[in-house]
Amino acid sequence: MKKYLYPEEGREGARAVGVGKCSLWPLQCYSDERGNLTAAEFSRDLPFVPRRNFFIYGVADGAKRGGHAHRTCRFFLVAVSGALSVALDDGEEKSEIILNSPKEGLYLPERVWSVQYGFSKDTVLSVFASHEYKDDDYIRDYEEFRRYARE
Amino acid sequence: MKKYLYPEEGREGARAVGVGKCSLWPLQCYSDERGNLTAAEFSRDLPFVPRRNFFIYGVADGAKRGGHAHRTCRFFLVAVSGALSVALDDGEEKSEIILNSPKEGLYLPERVWSVQYGFSKDTVLSVFASHEYKDDDYIRDYEEFRRYARE
Repeated sequence: MKKYLYPEEGREGARAVGVGKCSLWPLQCYSDERGNLTAAEFSRDLPFVPRRNFFIYGVADGAKRGGHAHRTCRFFLVAVSGALSVALDDGEEKSEIILNSPKEGLYLPERVWSVQYGFSKDTVLSVFASHEYKDDDYIRDYEEFRRYARE
Repeated sequence: MKKYLYPEEGREGARAVGVGKCSLWPLQCYSDERGNLTAAEFSRDLPFVPRRNFFIYGVADGAKRGGHAHRTCRFFLVAVSGALSVALDDGEEKSEIILNSPKEGLYLPERVWSVQYGFSKDTVLSVFASHEYKDDDYIRDYEEFRRYARE
């Protein structure tokens, strides 16, 4: 089995995207004549062991999702079908990423403002979360986020 | 927060499908003008806390997947897009299930022979597994499975 670096330093093959520790992580893919399979062993292939998964689908044309940051929760986003754009902002740096492959996932640490948009009609976005849902983990006001990010 | 029964007895809202403990479990869904979100908190909404997730996509027309049983590993299957059929066989009872909604998942316990087929072109099947991948957990010979199931 491959040895990976400590996740906070980035996994072997992971690449930074210009905003703090946000990074694209390769996933193990197996393709044969029957089709494709992408796998994630939680203790090895993701930047954290998830406690929750949700998936987003049937997004209306032109709709945006996200538009908030988190105090504690970290996320890992995989476009298992279709494509979308993700805007990232840690209060200092900004970037925009296109997710259009089930063969990689975007690590979104805490304290990053993120908006998802430009969903194609067939997009299914699978999101792993490091923590269970807690409403008070959200920062939904951008100016509050800017103050929080500077702390 | 809702209280659920002990998973082995089946979750509130779960329904048996005629083969042992195989059952369809409802998932929490949230829909609004931006689209749909289906969520699973691992310690509450699934029959086990998963250690692995994989998803299957781009399945060739007419292809079958599965065709094995597991000694220990349990699974939870969600058609997050499209549709497929799942044949179930615990050595005594048999059933066929159509999965065509991201709003429920199929609990597939250990010791059940399963084949997935009839994938529509856009099908994305997300599978949660109770254990990490181990090749010797597979039983790939049907007669060996029949003997194992009788033990």
